[in-house]
Amino acid sequence: MKKYQKQVDDWFQKQGWQYWDPLEILARLTEEVGEFARLINDRFGAKDKKPEETKQKAEEEIGDIIFTIICFANTHDIDLDQAIQASIDKVIERDADRFD
Amino acid sequence: MKKYQKQVDDWFQKQGWQYWDPLEILARLTEEVGEFARLINDRFGAKDKKPEETKQKAEEEIGDIIFTIICFANTHDIDLDQAIQASIDKVIERDADRFD
Amino acid sequence: MKKYQKQVDDWFQKQGWQYWDPLEILARLTEEVGEFARLINDRFGAKDKKPEETKQKAEEEIGDIIFTIICFANTHDIDLDQAIQASIDKVIERDADRFD
Amino acid sequence: MKKYQKQVDDWFQKQGWQYWDPLEILARLTEEVGEFARLINDRFGAKDKKPEETKQKAEEEIGDIIFTIICFANTHDIDLDQAIQASIDKVIERDADRFD
Repeated sequence: MKKYQKQVDDWFQKQGWQYWDPLEILARLTEEVGEFARLINDRFGAKDKKPEETKQKAEEEIGDIIFTIICFANTHDIDLDQAIQASIDKVIERDADRFD
Repeated sequence: MKKYQKQVDDWFQKQGWQYWDPLEILARLTEEVGEFARLINDRFGAKDKKPEETKQKAEEEIGDIIFTIICFANTHDIDLDQAIQASIDKVIERDADRFD
Repeated sequence: MKKYQKQVDDWFQKQGWQYWDPLEILARLTEEVGEFARLINDRFGAKDKKPEETKQKAEEEIGDIIFTIICFANTHDIDLDQAIQASIDKVIERDADRFD
Repeated sequence: MKKYQKQVDDWFQKQGWQYWDPLEILARLTEEVGEFARLINDRFGAKDKKPEETKQKAEEEIGDIIFTIICFANTHDIDLDQAIQASIDKVIERDADRFD
């Protein structure tokens, strides 16, 4: 994720723009998750007749969600690689592999 | 993100587990965003007295949000790197650099 | 709220329609909250230049959120008046008035 | 809903408290919806073994969601009865009854 965090940061700096406040970023995240919800509800309630289109739209919505998260991370000095790895490790309890 | 998508996928396969349904993943995402909202609202309404703790907790919540998204991506053959890059490119209109 | 719960229920019965499943109602709620978030973020980040329009749109979004909640309540035999009163009472601790 | 809107308003005035800002109310709403999502996902993925407990908890979460909405409505002079009726009317298209 470092590459993406840097791209976004470089661009904000270049434009002389400020990131949004935490509450604004949260509002935007809620908005993006809402758009994702609309897609999921439209397509997965009944049988999805346009699976290719769904995949593409889902990709767009998910990209927007993560972009919003990158903005928050960049304003709070959060290393997203570290954040993701920690969450994966929490779920995949490491000792699950101890007998391998 | 390929590395993280693969870690999660390998683990689900190893455990013989199924990913959740789209609507269940969405419910989980809504739940994780709700936890993030609680943190943001607690800490950023008034002056944050524990910035280090906030940063660590935000890192945890954000990691959980992205983990949930990875589960969705893996069940729908979505390349998260591509998704993120497309969202960044959309915001950073490429021609912004044309005069450089 | 009884009046509204009954209106919605009468209409679903008359149409011979089923309510959505809980996870579908939640997805719809997430979607409606996302639309509300868009409005809030658009209007309250900077100074709101169209307060009357904002009020009207907020009224619409909020109505949709509560409509979605009514659908859930009706499928789970939940009395919304009781639910609201309990939440108010929890916040307004009743003994706050004991010295009056 | 007038009764509930007034109760909340009277209490805030009596305490000399301010309502939260729009973005704070939205964050709180996102948080409450997240708690509702947790409940829904816990109980309705698999067969619900504790339907009575689910009903009671759902009632609590829903009450909290509507309480949060009341706070927003009160700060923006929104009549919730009007908002709910308009959303119901939109769904139940009035002319649906024209042939009765």
